Amino acid sequence: MATLQDIGVSALINLFGAFLFLIAFAVLRIQPINDRVYFPKWYLSGDRNSPRRSDATLVGKFVNLNYKTYFTFLNWMPQAMKMSESEIIRHAGFDSAIFLRIYTLGLKIFVPAMVLALVVLIPVNVSSGTLFFLKKELVVSDIDKLSISNVQPKSSKFFFHIAVEYLFTLWACFMLYREYNNVALMRLQYLASQRRRPEQFTVVVRNVPDMPGHSVPDTVDQFFKTNHPEHYLCHQAVYNANKYAKLVKQRERLQNWFDYYVLKHQRSPHKKPTCRTGFLGLWGNKVDSIEYYQQQIREFDHTMSLERQKVLKDSKLMLPVAFVSFDSRWGASVCAQTQQSKNPTLWLTSSAPEPRDIYWQNLAIPFISLTIRKLVIGVSVFALVFFYMIPIAFVQSLANLQGLDRVAPFLRPITRLDFVKSFLQGFLPGLALKIFLWILPSVLLVMSKIEGYIALSTLERRAAAKYYYFMLVNVFLGSIIAGTAFEQLHSFLHQSPTQIPRTIGVSIPMKATFFITYIMVDGWAGIAGEILRLKPLVIFHLKNMFLVKTERDRERAMDPGFVDFKETLPSLQLYFLLGIVYAAITPILLPFICVFFAFAYLVYRHQIINVYNQQYESCGAFWPHVHGRIIASLLISQLLLMGLMASKEAADSTPLLIILPVLTLTFHKYCKHRFEPAFGKYPLEEAMAKDKLEKETEPELNMKADLADAYLHPIFRSFEEELGEGEEEKRHREEMPEVKVDKHETLSSSPVTELGTPSHHHQVYNSASPSSHYASAYEQSSSQYEYHYEAHRYEDHEYRYN
Amino acid sequence: MATLQDIGVSALINLFGAFLFLIAFAVLRIQPINDRVYFPKWYLSGDRNSPRRSDATLVGKFVNLNYKTYFTFLNWMPQAMKMSESEIIRHAGFDSAIFLRIYTLGLKIFVPAMVLALVVLIPVNVSSGTLFFLKKELVVSDIDKLSISNVQPKSSKFFFHIAVEYLFTLWACFMLYREYNNVALMRLQYLASQRRRPEQFTVVVRNVPDMPGHSVPDTVDQFFKTNHPEHYLCHQAVYNANKYAKLVKQRERLQNWFDYYVLKHQRSPHKKPTCRTGFLGLWGNKVDSIEYYQQQIREFDHTMSLERQKVLKDSKLMLPVAFVSFDSRWGASVCAQTQQSKNPTLWLTSSAPEPRDIYWQNLAIPFISLTIRKLVIGVSVFALVFFYMIPIAFVQSLANLQGLDRVAPFLRPITRLDFVKSFLQGFLPGLALKIFLWILPSVLLVMSKIEGYIALSTLERRAAAKYYYFMLVNVFLGSIIAGTAFEQLHSFLHQSPTQIPRTIGVSIPMKATFFITYIMVDGWAGIAGEILRLKPLVIFHLKNMFLVKTERDRERAMDPGFVDFKETLPSLQLYFLLGIVYAAITPILLPFICVFFAFAYLVYRHQIINVYNQQYESCGAFWPHVHGRIIASLLISQLLLMGLMASKEAADSTPLLIILPVLTLTFHKYCKHRFEPAFGKYPLEEAMAKDKLEKETEPELNMKADLADAYLHPIFRSFEEELGEGEEEKRHREEMPEVKVDKHETLSSSPVTELGTPSHHHQVYNSASPSSHYASAYEQSSSQYEYHYEAHRYEDHEYRYN
Repeated sequence: MATLQDIGVSALINLFGAFLFLIAFAVLRIQPINDRVYFPKWYLSGDRNSPRRSDATLVGKFVNLNYKTYFTFLNWMPQAMKMSESEIIRHAGFDSAIFLRIYTLGLKIFVPAMVLALVVLIPVNVSSGTLFFLKKELVVSDIDKLSISNVQPKSSKFFFHIAVEYLFTLWACFMLYREYNNVALMRLQYLASQRRRPEQFTVVVRNVPDMPGHSVPDTVDQFFKTNHPEHYLCHQAVYNANKYAKLVKQRERLQNWFDYYVLKHQRSPHKKPTCRTGFLGLWGNKVDSIEYYQQQIREFDHTMSLERQKVLKDSKLMLPVAFVSFDSRWGASVCAQTQQSKNPTLWLTSSAPEPRDIYWQNLAIPFISLTIRKLVIGVSVFALVFFYMIPIAFVQSLANLQGLDRVAPFLRPITRLDFVKSFLQGFLPGLALKIFLWILPSVLLVMSKIEGYIALSTLERRAAAKYYYFMLVNVFLGSIIAGTAFEQLHSFLHQSPTQIPRTIGVSIPMKATFFITYIMVDGWAGIAGEILRLKPLVIFHLKNMFLVKTERDRERAMDPGFVDFKETLPSLQLYFLLGIVYAAITPILLPFICVFFAFAYLVYRHQIINVYNQQYESCGAFWPHVHGRIIASLLISQLLLMGLMASKEAADSTPLLIILPVLTLTFHKYCKHRFEPAFGKYPLEEAMAKDKLEKETEPELNMKADLADAYLHPIFRSFEEELGEGEEEKRHREEMPEVKVDKHETLSSSPVTELGTPSHHHQVYNSASPSSHYASAYEQSSSQYEYHYEAHRYEDHEYRYN
Repeated sequence: MATLQDIGVSALINLFGAFLFLIAFAVLRIQPINDRVYFPKWYLSGDRNSPRRSDATLVGKFVNLNYKTYFTFLNWMPQAMKMSESEIIRHAGFDSAIFLRIYTLGLKIFVPAMVLALVVLIPVNVSSGTLFFLKKELVVSDIDKLSISNVQPKSSKFFFHIAVEYLFTLWACFMLYREYNNVALMRLQYLASQRRRPEQFTVVVRNVPDMPGHSVPDTVDQFFKTNHPEHYLCHQAVYNANKYAKLVKQRERLQNWFDYYVLKHQRSPHKKPTCRTGFLGLWGNKVDSIEYYQQQIREFDHTMSLERQKVLKDSKLMLPVAFVSFDSRWGASVCAQTQQSKNPTLWLTSSAPEPRDIYWQNLAIPFISLTIRKLVIGVSVFALVFFYMIPIAFVQSLANLQGLDRVAPFLRPITRLDFVKSFLQGFLPGLALKIFLWILPSVLLVMSKIEGYIALSTLERRAAAKYYYFMLVNVFLGSIIAGTAFEQLHSFLHQSPTQIPRTIGVSIPMKATFFITYIMVDGWAGIAGEILRLKPLVIFHLKNMFLVKTERDRERAMDPGFVDFKETLPSLQLYFLLGIVYAAITPILLPFICVFFAFAYLVYRHQIINVYNQQYESCGAFWPHVHGRIIASLLISQLLLMGLMASKEAADSTPLLIILPVLTLTFHKYCKHRFEPAFGKYPLEEAMAKDKLEKETEPELNMKADLADAYLHPIFRSFEEELGEGEEEKRHREEMPEVKVDKHETLSSSPVTELGTPSHHHQVYNSASPSSHYASAYEQSSSQYEYHYEAHRYEDHEYRYN
């Protein structure tokens, strides 16, 4: 265990590290050449087209020559604080603004708690001095003098700790309530202030029953015309286009080769690039590469248009899913909240996510398979959390020297070398673990995908939940109790329920120094690394050097990134847990937590304003989870404190703690009733008010035209795009009447609005689409399915048609 | 522990007891004088007005002289089986028919299980013979030879038991699935086949917000006219009439005295009854009783009509609750399933229970208090279940001899008498426990009332759930592990989670004989007692002797009773638990369970057809609970078998059982998704179909007139009733314009239907009301609030206005 000095040294080192990162950031960010790495958000929002301080000189274009700016290297901090919350909502979206609120909530909870704990508990702990007198004999850390460990067993001073725990819980609950209330109100206000969007009028219907002799669209049309006669407007079918998606992928590969050879030819125009047609270009006839790939692409386009026609015509490829649109928010809200059929597994309706939030592959999963999928994934997550060390230990056992010798005896002469040996022994086992931890969030995301959620935002939230459980067991419990999670599970199963909090509670004060170091390394330095954006910086410059030809290419090379909820939320929740657990036990940990929250708040605020570009808007749907996890942390802290007290034989004071979990749970239940519906259901009162307002301001609106292809399957959109760039547009337009028909019908049936703005709608969409390429692809197996057009374009388009 | 012979003797005794009951029943039921005790349902349904076999002779009116009928004393059994299920639904309601299905479900699950267990397990158990050889040394029961105890530890024969548990679980799940499916379909069919009823069009709205300057009816009207403009029809307000209810109670007391004196006068016409006006009639002036009470009643009526006016006029006495009616089932279903306001604690809508099912007192409870009430009751139930022995032990300690001596030393001479002493010592402590157990269901019902549910059916279900927990802990676990529930709780908290099933599992086979006896005494004999109806028989004849003057009085004296779900469901679920737990452990218990289910099925079928008259119709809303408890029993049995196996060191076979609980839970989740919505939500498809059908068949229907006072607060109805019998009707009709206005308005605004049948509606209601007196008052603190008009009258009325 570390002394106070050790902690101080560690803090200094980490502060120095963070400081270095900040200096590097301050220098790098003012270089015009890095402008697209550190301010991509402004390029995306259209406010900036070229670096701000571009001098006339050639050097000035790449390096900042204005030496004055180097002295004000921390001025990003006040800049980050300038923007108001409502401006952030407009600029970066509601999710980002609410995400920042988690940090302010942390500050609001922990700063007063810190003051209280430092003023009350530290004097109490220090004055008691069990460890104080035993110092000579025992090796105890100085930190322990400030913690509850320093209080003698059976002391009546434990009443102070219990009082602090009570006050702290009350304070935390009060802040949680206020914040939940604010967020829920803000969400409703945001929804009310939003302009017309397709998701407000649309409901996704799953498990459309198979009616013999009727196609899916007929069935859907008939059902909703019967059961929602007053508000039903139209619907869009969903196609199973896996095969077509494969073709799109292959065509992209061809296009890449074609681009590559064209580029090559441009650089050395006097030399025609050639290639061989055989396997991997290793043998076969030598041909002109550009012509060859042009020819190939042309043929491919033909195949694709045939496949496309097949998809649209073959009723077997039509999924039992539809996006059903209504003529009012009221109608959509009613349909989303009610049960349609007497068989509750058919005609499942729910509010449609916004178009860019949809995960198309999961739309086709039938109901019965969902139960099984959830069971399988539930078991897998349990196994992953508790037994993840088993496969890693196996890989590690393979990846050590003996293992290598056995598998590859011919390497023996090399592995006998001393420096190779020590490198392998020190490096290989650690590498296996690192790789596992690095790919873990993606694995969890894939697991969530298998569970069958249809919105990307839900998938991220589910993955975040799984990651939280993993961290709770393997980081929090794993650090407190030595041994693997599997060993913990085994010992928990064989201990009595009252013994478990005692076992954990006893070791908690001893691990305070470890967690303080953890907060500094993972928190402080990690956040400083976040602002530096080393990886995107390197990749951007590499791309810039080798690939970028035009301004558009440069935009494509830009990678704004986004707040990765599935990783940041769980680690944030872990910090909340640490702060809450140690508040009454080792209060000296709280200043470190507060510094983390304050620093991370500044950094994320800066990043959200200048860098990140969110992939979708879930309107703060993650808040109930954040709230729930903080409540869970409170419960954990109360149980552990009870266990610790019991082990200190403070029999007089421990029973006082029993009421606290009951009250906390009741508070949670109340909040759930009071606020959670605001995150799931759209209240009819709101819907009706918004409908009425709209009817008054725009009485001659043609809704159907707007909604006709808002939820068109993205592959058709991407295809149109490709064609739009080529010359064959006209031919293909004739070949694909199925998609157009609905729209043209709509337009011709509404001559009034055809002249108005809404009819431009589709063109706006398409003009936005090409830029969708540079939106950093969300990690996903087949990215063709997704259609990311940027938030700002989307909003542009919104503004235009309103 | 008992030998097989002991069990045989006990079975014989119980069979003989049951047989005696049946003989007594067979003799009593064919006496014309008892006809109203054993066949009240037929009187209520109007099919019978006087005993069937009424001879001309005077004796024949009271005693059955037809000696032939005495020989066919078991012919009620085939008679009970004759009626088909659909006839039972028509005759006794859906709840009763579904209640009978629980018994057939028991038979369907346990009869094949019994055959399997007897054929496979008993030979396996007997052949093993650990106990077989140890017989001489150990005192073991013969039953144990047939149970799993007889198998040697580490034997591979445990695979048989595990296979049987698997087969049994699969079979039980299969039957549960089929039955849930059937019941859900039957429920929807029943709802679809029902004629028009007010609850189909009505939604109960709670927590109407307080708008300054607006009365509650105005607020409600405005809100629903705005947010449900297409389907909203009208609404009925609810009044806080606690004070008025007290007056009604007092007036009833006066009326009773008046009736008593009138009766007295009639019996001895030459003597005028007198009484004193002072305290308890002990002093004061002597007056003519009849005149005095007549005068008192007249004055009271005046006070009441003043109070009544006050209630109706004072907007402070109007509760923030309303029954909102729609013009279609679709509209009501939509309103019940959706969230209305952005504050989810306001405008809480849910489907209205049928008028006779409403528990009026709970309508006024505000939302925030509901959370607290649930918390308080949750804690109380926990305390009641685990610490109920503490107050009883306290009372017992008071109620023993020493206690009595201390409290009442003047009784010492009497308590010193030997026979008084032994009586008190043997009787008093037991009496305290008996009284507690006897009032327990009512206490639990009161607790459920405090929780704030607004329908009597929900209250009964909640009370049943609490009673089940009580029985599970105190009867099931309490019998298996010696010691009080509190001691169990203590030991569970200090044992590891894997140890608990082991502790219980080990003692389970040893308690088989106890539970076999329990099934015979509580089950067999209890059911036989049920059919005899000793208590109603005695009370009816007492009333007949002393009170009955007219035929109407005789009808009032009739107490048909009803299936008391809050007691029968939990005990049924306990039998399921016993059968499921012992199926693989001591299969010899299964025949006893099967006999119970078969016998109880016959008896309840007979009672439902001939006796019981249900208070309300919940359309089988209790089925999901029955299903859930049986699933829970399966889980308990799997865990206990695992514990038992572990204690038998059957390490090879135990892990095979781990999959079973996971599968069972998954099955439960699937069923919950698949069927439970059918018991809560009315699907829009169904609602729309029914609406359409009705519109086609009765295009000129006036809904508003029918719905105008369907949910009128019962005290106003009861008052009208009282007045309807007196002469002051007209005066009061003028005095209470508030209630009438709405209805008259409606009628005058629809001249077409005023001539048609619907306008008779109110009269029909009123004519039905007087008979509501004899409906046995549901146990409830202030029964004036309730308004029980009988099912058959209600249905009559339904038929008439359709």
